[in-house]
Amino acid sequence: MIKLVIDAMSGDNGSKVVVEAIKQFKKDYNDVSFIVCGKKEELEEIKDIAEIIDAPDIVPMDAGPLQVLRMKNSSMMRAIKEVKENGYDAVVSCGSTGGFLSASTITLKMIPGIKRAALCTCFPTMYKNKKLTLLDVGANNENSGEELYQFAIMGRLYSQVVYGVKDPATYLLCNGSEDEKGSPTTKEAHKLLTERNFPNFGGNVEARDVFDGHVDVMVCDGFSGNVFLKGCEGTAKFVGGLVKSAFKRNLWSKLGYLHVRKGMKEMSQTLDYKAVGGALLLGINGIAIKGHGNSDAYAFYHAIRVAYQLASQNIVEKIKKELENQQEMIVNCNVNCNT
Amino acid sequence: MIKLVIDAMSGDNGSKVVVEAIKQFKKDYNDVSFIVCGKKEELEEIKDIAEIIDAPDIVPMDAGPLQVLRMKNSSMMRAIKEVKENGYDAVVSCGSTGGFLSASTITLKMIPGIKRAALCTCFPTMYKNKKLTLLDVGANNENSGEELYQFAIMGRLYSQVVYGVKDPATYLLCNGSEDEKGSPTTKEAHKLLTERNFPNFGGNVEARDVFDGHVDVMVCDGFSGNVFLKGCEGTAKFVGGLVKSAFKRNLWSKLGYLHVRKGMKEMSQTLDYKAVGGALLLGINGIAIKGHGNSDAYAFYHAIRVAYQLASQNIVEKIKKELENQQEMIVNCNVNCNT
Repeated sequence: MIKLVIDAMSGDNGSKVVVEAIKQFKKDYNDVSFIVCGKKEELEEIKDIAEIIDAPDIVPMDAGPLQVLRMKNSSMMRAIKEVKENGYDAVVSCGSTGGFLSASTITLKMIPGIKRAALCTCFPTMYKNKKLTLLDVGANNENSGEELYQFAIMGRLYSQVVYGVKDPATYLLCNGSEDEKGSPTTKEAHKLLTERNFPNFGGNVEARDVFDGHVDVMVCDGFSGNVFLKGCEGTAKFVGGLVKSAFKRNLWSKLGYLHVRKGMKEMSQTLDYKAVGGALLLGINGIAIKGHGNSDAYAFYHAIRVAYQLASQNIVEKIKKELENQQEMIVNCNVNCNT
Repeated sequence: MIKLVIDAMSGDNGSKVVVEAIKQFKKDYNDVSFIVCGKKEELEEIKDIAEIIDAPDIVPMDAGPLQVLRMKNSSMMRAIKEVKENGYDAVVSCGSTGGFLSASTITLKMIPGIKRAALCTCFPTMYKNKKLTLLDVGANNENSGEELYQFAIMGRLYSQVVYGVKDPATYLLCNGSEDEKGSPTTKEAHKLLTERNFPNFGGNVEARDVFDGHVDVMVCDGFSGNVFLKGCEGTAKFVGGLVKSAFKRNLWSKLGYLHVRKGMKEMSQTLDYKAVGGALLLGINGIAIKGHGNSDAYAFYHAIRVAYQLASQNIVEKIKKELENQQEMIVNCNVNCNT
């Protein structure tokens, strides 16, 4: 039985969407139980299918980590503490990104051996149904090559567990595809990934080629990853706005829209961030999923789905084991190299 | 009289588009003279309106700087050398980016006091006709805060000279808009721009907000700038492809396209990179404009236009003067602070 703790209050759309998502999830999956933190009176509807913990305070969207840690009776902080104290499998929230992720890290601690946690998310690609796993997209302001190497390990496991890719093609985001290109950090990471024979390492990839569908996992430092992600978001919004203006031009163009409506719907489904399931911090000693702040029931459902998948596949244990293997490999290599 | 040197051979579309562009430019501007390097027999048509220099060798698109420097009889290398040896105003090429820009830097040298040259380009925004100036988008793999500060000086002058913006709003590309956000490099740059009262400095801007139209100049290190630019390019291509599929879906959607054709044309005009005029290396002792490799006559015309504008406004001298002013300001500030 997978035990998921839910922060029901912190999203822009309140507890209603959370309640709906939980009801649907319970219908679709029978090996899951929910512990839901929030205003008791708003959670009446699910009291028979979930354990309710009354935690009425709401963390504001712009809350920082310290503020969250102080709000002990908030739905967010209670949810995180439940995971810590009762060993539940995962926590899901739609609240303040910075606040939730920092409070999770401080409360749940890092996986021993992991140098830095990475914010991991997914992106659609031109290749139908194929999703791209990206990390770090903003947990860090700068990273070392060794940290990027660890991100590759965690990203590979995420792609295997969540998308079922057997042998994910892993690339470094870079300013050129040639091996010798890159910042000092990516050059160091490239060296480590090559020397240690990282499985299916494809080398460097330019930002314009990551949507082609040949990349499963894209590794980068938190600063460039954030710039990449938000640049893509901004461009999609920009181009989308231009398409909308094209349709709104006059009565004829409005009529034209009727003809392409279905195609446009397929397009927005491809780009739908709500089906992605939010972001998570990989590298901490637990599973903490952050849905979009303005998630509806559908988006929250998918955030729960990602939590469920990662918990059933025990991703934290897998990361720990992989780190041990790596450590052994490095020690063996050093012994062999020195003898 | 502005004297422009043209590399006629190195673009994907050969000398034909160059010849056309020069003919048109001569019609539109009367205070310009051209020195054109390339295969003499292909430039017959313009021999009465331009000085022709026979330089038949063609630098390949993947040529590196050393290869270019060695190809002394190539149209590219001859063009750069003409600027150096005869003091002409600018050089324009559509050849290999890395090769052209490095060969220009090595041949023309840096402006004294400039620590690093920056690759500068422009981007459309949601605000009609407003262009965004971006630098560095790829000349460097890493930068210091002081280098970013110099990029801000050069970007501001570029925006003033090429787009006629009187007091450009200058921002740092960052992983958050708050002052305390950023990589160590952007934090240092933020400090310098604030302390030295950089005119109309707007602080940090997130990658998703740069197209809003409130940013005139966006400053970043070469690695993130390159990731940003190529990420936007990739997304625009991705979304554009999805729109195309929506129209191609069936006969009705194809008919729908007829209705929105004009609107879609306006959209592609907004996104048209060809009207931007290519990229240039700011900080070197001369004007070297790099058009897109697959420029047609229209795009090449605009690359010439940018060279013409920068030369008539004497941007190199303006940068030198601004550096002197800054130096004085810093010295004065130090004197005042220490007394």
